[in-house]
Amino acid sequence: MELGIIGLGKMGHNLALNAHEKGHKVYGFNRSIEPVDYVKEMGVWATSNLEEMLNQFETRKVIWLMVPAGKIVDVVIEEIKGYLRADDIIIDGGNSNYKDTVRRYNSLKELGINFVDVGTSGGLEGARNGACMMVGGDEEPVRFIEPVLKDICIENGYGYFGASGSGHYAKMIHNGIEYGMMQAIGEGFEILKESPYDYNYEQLAKVWSNGSVIRGWLMELTQKAFSEDSHLERIRGVVGSSGEGLWTVEEAIRLGVPATVITDSLYARYRSHQEDTFSAKVVAGLRNQFGGHYVVKK
Amino acid sequence: MELGIIGLGKMGHNLALNAHEKGHKVYGFNRSIEPVDYVKEMGVWATSNLEEMLNQFETRKVIWLMVPAGKIVDVVIEEIKGYLRADDIIIDGGNSNYKDTVRRYNSLKELGINFVDVGTSGGLEGARNGACMMVGGDEEPVRFIEPVLKDICIENGYGYFGASGSGHYAKMIHNGIEYGMMQAIGEGFEILKESPYDYNYEQLAKVWSNGSVIRGWLMELTQKAFSEDSHLERIRGVVGSSGEGLWTVEEAIRLGVPATVITDSLYARYRSHQEDTFSAKVVAGLRNQFGGHYVVKK
Repeated sequence: MELGIIGLGKMGHNLALNAHEKGHKVYGFNRSIEPVDYVKEMGVWATSNLEEMLNQFETRKVIWLMVPAGKIVDVVIEEIKGYLRADDIIIDGGNSNYKDTVRRYNSLKELGINFVDVGTSGGLEGARNGACMMVGGDEEPVRFIEPVLKDICIENGYGYFGASGSGHYAKMIHNGIEYGMMQAIGEGFEILKESPYDYNYEQLAKVWSNGSVIRGWLMELTQKAFSEDSHLERIRGVVGSSGEGLWTVEEAIRLGVPATVITDSLYARYRSHQEDTFSAKVVAGLRNQFGGHYVVKK
Repeated sequence: MELGIIGLGKMGHNLALNAHEKGHKVYGFNRSIEPVDYVKEMGVWATSNLEEMLNQFETRKVIWLMVPAGKIVDVVIEEIKGYLRADDIIIDGGNSNYKDTVRRYNSLKELGINFVDVGTSGGLEGARNGACMMVGGDEEPVRFIEPVLKDICIENGYGYFGASGSGHYAKMIHNGIEYGMMQAIGEGFEILKESPYDYNYEQLAKVWSNGSVIRGWLMELTQKAFSEDSHLERIRGVVGSSGEGLWTVEEAIRLGVPATVITDSLYARYRSHQEDTFSAKVVAGLRNQFGGHYVVKK
């Protein structure tokens, strides 16, 4: 199948190589030239000229966007839609908010252009060697691109979930669950660290990765992290978040679902960015007011 | 190695069969006769006469307790310790509280009897075909029984973590992490259920089990649960807890570790047992008092 990939960053170039390897005709595009040269060296057709890429297609155009979520997706769609005909397919493989996805779907629908949302999991390794993909959109275009999706996913790692946005929505929830799981792992090891025992964290994560109930990729990555830095002394406990956890919590709030663990795991990440908190200052001040309890002076 | 197993319940008989299969001389004991007959049919020596079992040993006695945590462990130790000599080994493979373990270790130490704690994970299937075991206790007896431990565990699924109690402590934390992970999964699916989309939960759990970041045994079990009951309509959302989650939270509180996600997952289980809550009654009553907001009358 002919497949244009826009955005040859970390995820995009791995997907390009993966699809290319599976025998698909990949046309890569990236505005800056370095990633273009990189995939070209690997035998993949690529360019930094968008029009040239779009003109490669001999059949129905299938354009896979692998660009950062947000405004840039709209910008790229705006740039390419003039080159597309009714029936062509745009795939958004990024971590877009499902509401944006539905909006884009509806707007492209008016032009007869299909818009398919693909939530992608499995990290860079997955993108390169077999990803996990949650797909939403109209059934016809999804079935059309299914051969590519199945080729670049690990066995049983691909699923079509229905209406536009359902792929990105599933990915959002996946990340919410991931936040909670990671925070639970983090808390467990923090208790171990304060415990009366002197654990070898790497060894414990390794044991837990083999045969335990909590075995899984996250525990294997925990082992890997401790194997590189036995007490994680080289990193600070500051945890970023890229939106999907926030959206999961927003969705839980909107729907009235008491998702306390996922919410707490998001808050724990926010807390990790604070050196001091105003809430604790207020509480310390109050305790001092009513009970004369000590305050730590700056 | 000669190995006495006391308690041939779900975990015990699977361990007995597992060790027997690996060539160890297993002597099973269970007070009631049915489990005894069961393992005997499978070719394992077993009896419901404790003294007879203890008299089987030709070498250093190694007695594996696979009985419910709590008072019963003390009762069994009391019963058998008269038959043991200095240097013999008692293994507690149950989910004992590590504080009890340390107490028992110290008390048996006075008699010269070794006490090794083994936290076991992996469920019944693991016990039968390859478990995950976290081991604590004095190094000499642990090294002595290590051949058995390695035989009945999955590859890399065995680890020795040091002083008495460290095995049960690690198992406690394992279960705390498990609580948090499971609650995160539960919350994610609850949001999906209330979402604008009509997900096939089994299909989604299957996709997440293959190549995603949150893949692992718990997600595979989630898939299995949905495969047996696509909307879990045959079960009520009431979740038990057997102590380890509570102990993890007690430990977090004692040590001053803000383990909010693990704590919330324990509370969510408690909440699952309540039809109505007094806290919500109080809050509803207060809203009614200050703002005339509606209350739902009984």
